[in-house]
Amino acid sequence: MDALLDPQSIALIGASADAGRIGGLPLELLTRFGYAGQVYPVNPKYEEVFGLRCWPEIEAVPGPVDLVVLAIGASEVTAMLRRCHARGVRAAIVYAAGFAEAGEAGARLQQTLEAFAAESGMAIAGPNCMGFANLNTQAHTAFASVFKTAPMQQGAGSISLLTQSGNVCAAVYAIGRRLGLAFSHFINTGNEACIDFSRYLEYLAQDPGTGIVLGYIEQLRDGPRFVRACQSLARQDKVLIALKAGTTEKGAQAVRSHTCALAGDRRVYAAAFEQLNVIQADDFAQMAAIASLAQLRGRSAGRRVAVITMSGALGAILADKFIEAGLSLPDLPPELQASLRAGIPDYGMVGNPVDVTGNVVNDPHFVRTVLDALARSPAIDTVVIYAPGYMLDRMADALAETAAAHPRLLVAIDTGSARCRDRLRQAGVAVFDDLGLAVNSLAPYLRWCERRRRPFLTTAAVATSGERAVASLPCSEAAARDWLTKFGMPAQRVACASSVGQAVARARELGFPLAMKILSPDIAHKTDIGGVVLNVKDEAGVRDAYDTLMEAGARQAGARLEGVLLQTMERGVAELIVGATRDPVFGPVLTVGLGGVLTELYQDVSHRLLPVDAAMAHDMLRELKAYPLLEGYRGPAGDVAAACEAIVAVGAAMLAAPCEVGEIEVNPLLVREAGQGVAVLDALILPAIARGNPGTQ
Amino acid sequence: MDALLDPQSIALIGASADAGRIGGLPLELLTRFGYAGQVYPVNPKYEEVFGLRCWPEIEAVPGPVDLVVLAIGASEVTAMLRRCHARGVRAAIVYAAGFAEAGEAGARLQQTLEAFAAESGMAIAGPNCMGFANLNTQAHTAFASVFKTAPMQQGAGSISLLTQSGNVCAAVYAIGRRLGLAFSHFINTGNEACIDFSRYLEYLAQDPGTGIVLGYIEQLRDGPRFVRACQSLARQDKVLIALKAGTTEKGAQAVRSHTCALAGDRRVYAAAFEQLNVIQADDFAQMAAIASLAQLRGRSAGRRVAVITMSGALGAILADKFIEAGLSLPDLPPELQASLRAGIPDYGMVGNPVDVTGNVVNDPHFVRTVLDALARSPAIDTVVIYAPGYMLDRMADALAETAAAHPRLLVAIDTGSARCRDRLRQAGVAVFDDLGLAVNSLAPYLRWCERRRRPFLTTAAVATSGERAVASLPCSEAAARDWLTKFGMPAQRVACASSVGQAVARARELGFPLAMKILSPDIAHKTDIGGVVLNVKDEAGVRDAYDTLMEAGARQAGARLEGVLLQTMERGVAELIVGATRDPVFGPVLTVGLGGVLTELYQDVSHRLLPVDAAMAHDMLRELKAYPLLEGYRGPAGDVAAACEAIVAVGAAMLAAPCEVGEIEVNPLLVREAGQGVAVLDALILPAIARGNPGTQ
Repeated sequence: MDALLDPQSIALIGASADAGRIGGLPLELLTRFGYAGQVYPVNPKYEEVFGLRCWPEIEAVPGPVDLVVLAIGASEVTAMLRRCHARGVRAAIVYAAGFAEAGEAGARLQQTLEAFAAESGMAIAGPNCMGFANLNTQAHTAFASVFKTAPMQQGAGSISLLTQSGNVCAAVYAIGRRLGLAFSHFINTGNEACIDFSRYLEYLAQDPGTGIVLGYIEQLRDGPRFVRACQSLARQDKVLIALKAGTTEKGAQAVRSHTCALAGDRRVYAAAFEQLNVIQADDFAQMAAIASLAQLRGRSAGRRVAVITMSGALGAILADKFIEAGLSLPDLPPELQASLRAGIPDYGMVGNPVDVTGNVVNDPHFVRTVLDALARSPAIDTVVIYAPGYMLDRMADALAETAAAHPRLLVAIDTGSARCRDRLRQAGVAVFDDLGLAVNSLAPYLRWCERRRRPFLTTAAVATSGERAVASLPCSEAAARDWLTKFGMPAQRVACASSVGQAVARARELGFPLAMKILSPDIAHKTDIGGVVLNVKDEAGVRDAYDTLMEAGARQAGARLEGVLLQTMERGVAELIVGATRDPVFGPVLTVGLGGVLTELYQDVSHRLLPVDAAMAHDMLRELKAYPLLEGYRGPAGDVAAACEAIVAVGAAMLAAPCEVGEIEVNPLLVREAGQGVAVLDALILPAIARGNPGTQ
Repeated sequence: MDALLDPQSIALIGASADAGRIGGLPLELLTRFGYAGQVYPVNPKYEEVFGLRCWPEIEAVPGPVDLVVLAIGASEVTAMLRRCHARGVRAAIVYAAGFAEAGEAGARLQQTLEAFAAESGMAIAGPNCMGFANLNTQAHTAFASVFKTAPMQQGAGSISLLTQSGNVCAAVYAIGRRLGLAFSHFINTGNEACIDFSRYLEYLAQDPGTGIVLGYIEQLRDGPRFVRACQSLARQDKVLIALKAGTTEKGAQAVRSHTCALAGDRRVYAAAFEQLNVIQADDFAQMAAIASLAQLRGRSAGRRVAVITMSGALGAILADKFIEAGLSLPDLPPELQASLRAGIPDYGMVGNPVDVTGNVVNDPHFVRTVLDALARSPAIDTVVIYAPGYMLDRMADALAETAAAHPRLLVAIDTGSARCRDRLRQAGVAVFDDLGLAVNSLAPYLRWCERRRRPFLTTAAVATSGERAVASLPCSEAAARDWLTKFGMPAQRVACASSVGQAVARARELGFPLAMKILSPDIAHKTDIGGVVLNVKDEAGVRDAYDTLMEAGARQAGARLEGVLLQTMERGVAELIVGATRDPVFGPVLTVGLGGVLTELYQDVSHRLLPVDAAMAHDMLRELKAYPLLEGYRGPAGDVAAACEAIVAVGAAMLAAPCEVGEIEVNPLLVREAGQGVAVLDALILPAIARGNPGTQ
């Protein structure tokens, strides 16, 4: 990877003297920006390009070559790579399109390329990529004209771009440079034939020149490696800020999990990002703005924001925006309010937002007092000051001094044209020129600040023992229930019966009223086929229901009928749906939602990558908008602890299950009143379904 | 109002020679920007200020004076106004703070001012305001330094600022000028002692120089006048783009409706804005961006967007963003796709988004073909093209030509540094340099484009007849039910009984099972006090229930007990809550939501200003996330037509009710299967509650 991303010598095969061509532009950039390593243009047509001697073929290049860049057609690529490998080259970048993205012939070319990479051990980037740039060494291998149009940074940068699109890479770079961001790596991954997004991310996690990664993701090809790379980033207090494309049907080409309508990919990615401390970005400008905040991550920050303005209206607007974005503006402690009131006129505000009023701006001593008090107060985490233009200029000294004296995050918003912006940035103050962008980037950044120290989930999977494996798939509800109890799901008062006489006897033991269901490994959705009878009230009802269920079962051609399952009718506080599925990217995923028809309409569900412990299960429940029901909203409180145990049990079962198990679902899980536990009202174990081609976009 | 906003002559009392003071800055602006009217500085201390002769007192001013600007203290204001009025001045602007916002003494000063305005007929703006600017005549009466820091526009503008905060006015002006917007009026209303927001809005609706109004609203003081002003704007195809502050508890100082937890102010404002074709803005930059789109409102546009890019990734991102924002990207018709495919390589996309690929950009003829085809297609309404920097430059000719040939809205997004931006804007193409801002401003603008031609609600209230008025308040459920039937609510099979024998007889007539409820004008929330018994199955049950209910009633000290109400137990597809309340700003408001405990947790409700007809009622239902339940989601469809009639009936009842009626609520309204109507399961009429001080912010 070093040879790819930090090469000491570069050969460009297919060199051109025309900076408008892909074989010429990187040479112009290498020479213009003073790359210190060796550059070897290769093309028999030229003697010299961009003032560099041009070599007729790779074999003629005199010195060692770390990295070769191939600006040649797809069909010639692998043959040329063989020659480069023979010449001792360790890494290559392949620009050419016409591989996997271009039909069957292209797919064959890519297979050949992949086979060669595996056999030779060469690090091969692309194909179908724009190349890289190391902005700290000026090793340019990208045909990206943005380096000519955006002003080149002076000095080293620590922000790396890692994108699955060259155009996105260039667009974010351009926006970042306008904000004054300094970059380290510019990486776009193309088809990822040999090196995927997660492998680059691992490299950047270890790269001492990288502190922040801006990622653009269409599809992760190696979820577990991505998880490890994120863990590695977090250990070093680095941060990945990622934009995920394909969050709508229209935008997505990636295939959805067929068996899990609730856990659409988008939600699993979002849940994984949250768990892995990745900041999910919405658009390019916001991504760059979050990066500028993350450069200040040495400063303490969090969701409790104090807002200072010199206008009541702006205070109200900022309060609305911050609170709507999920941050809080706590009331300031009374003694702090009293000290602010000493200098703020009656018509100003001292709670939070603080309206110091326009007059106070002319009193730099008092501004210093206010800022100092807010930078120290344990009641808040972050200080935001809104002042337009010259008003901010008048407070700039006080702000810069406060930033020097206190390690807390200070943010200035100026919708005018303050002259102090650069000075404030140098002093460690975050500066925004747009209210909306300030709120939209502060909200995810400050949430991240609060979770960045949180320990990661352990990926040590529960060992699968023979005893715990499902005997056979598909299995009946009774078998599913039995199996789940091995993982901590409480056993239920249910009974099976394979004759009407047995059913009556079991019913007597259980007591009335009862629910009765058809028992068959081949009938997963019993309600749909008339395989459920509720509210059976007496023995005659049991006999009727038995016949009804058997007739319904008999109508299902080929279904093996094992009899019926009986369970007493249960009442509780709320019904949950608890499901575990296998996500094609991230593996086992747990989903919890409020049960019933409204779950789907309101999409009130929470997802986590497994494993999930009781505390995480409780977090999942708390994420539900319907959570107040469990806490006793207009009724008794539910047994939340028992619900959490049941959720953990479903997750543990999925981790222990053989890979043929595709889905485990308890729906509904009835939560009784506090202290009275939960009841499994239905349980399903479904086999994994062979997936179609996950496709590419 | 003309004298205030388009004065021919201005006197400034309290004139200063110092442009840093409020008495000096307007004079500097008037002289610097070439106001053509007469300017009379008034201050005995000076002979001359800013090259203008200064007069010792208003009586000494030689010519007629349209408008006087008072840069003097609060206590001197009314006395000075009397002198000005005697001198023939018709309008005044009062800068001074220290009125209603400053305690009791200030409130008294404001009352005196208001009384003088009423008595004299003078148009008095403020107090506590920053003044105005007419950018088309350069009549500057505002002490706003933003006119010195932001570049002054060349030529006439048609965008007026109307804000309840001087700071917001200045901030939006500064941002708008950076975007190249040209303004007509700069108005901030201050305390609105004599002239309120809606009065200015009426003026701007009639003002030929104004086409677009950017509003900032904390509190509307005259809702009905605001409604009329919006109707007037709409008739002339003008548009109000408004930011409302106080959408969170923390941001809001205005009092909430005590009797209607569902219809919080924020939601009523949002519903009113939607009904009145006001575009609700989120922040300043977005507001300015929407204004730049609205300047192109002569072009046809709508929610069906075609996206053209030269990058699959950008296509995916834009598709996600637009769809998440509520717009649609319909698939292009097959014949259109075929014609695009003729020039777009296999690896490009012809559906929607269209990825023409980077190569095609070099073929201006084909770019023209693509743009022309999309500008004509009846399958879409709006064309968005994303191209960074030089790529957009290469397509600029084709874009400008298409804009000249077709009256459809064309939007260009450039995250690079295209040189053609100004040229495209002049050609009538909307240009954005930020993806997020483009989506966030296009979404509300394109929604507005679709509703701008929609007829307004008629505000002709239903006449209240004696017969229709409620006999007395508070009233029992039975009386409430009876009264609602007069407005079209279907009569229900219910019965009242004032003795246990009568209850048994009525129960026999109705049939079992039954619900029984205490009947009392003094007990509104019957369930809370044990005043409801459900599932009464036989006569013995009726007797028991009667006793239980009477005992529960007797525990409510002072409650008049009229007996019980009986109704057969009903089953249906869904339960709705239908409520009408009086909003302190907008008057009678209707609220519809899915009934039950989850309504409040999910806040799945819809609001409208009354009157509401059946079509609007249907729209309200369709806005509910739970609406699919009524259409037969996993079950039978409900009687939507009957539900709409019942909703209309509640609204009509509220419009006809005397003002003592504060709230009418049917909860639940049971919607039976299609064709089987609805059932009122409870009905309430509550008296209006005396409101606390609505407060100011």
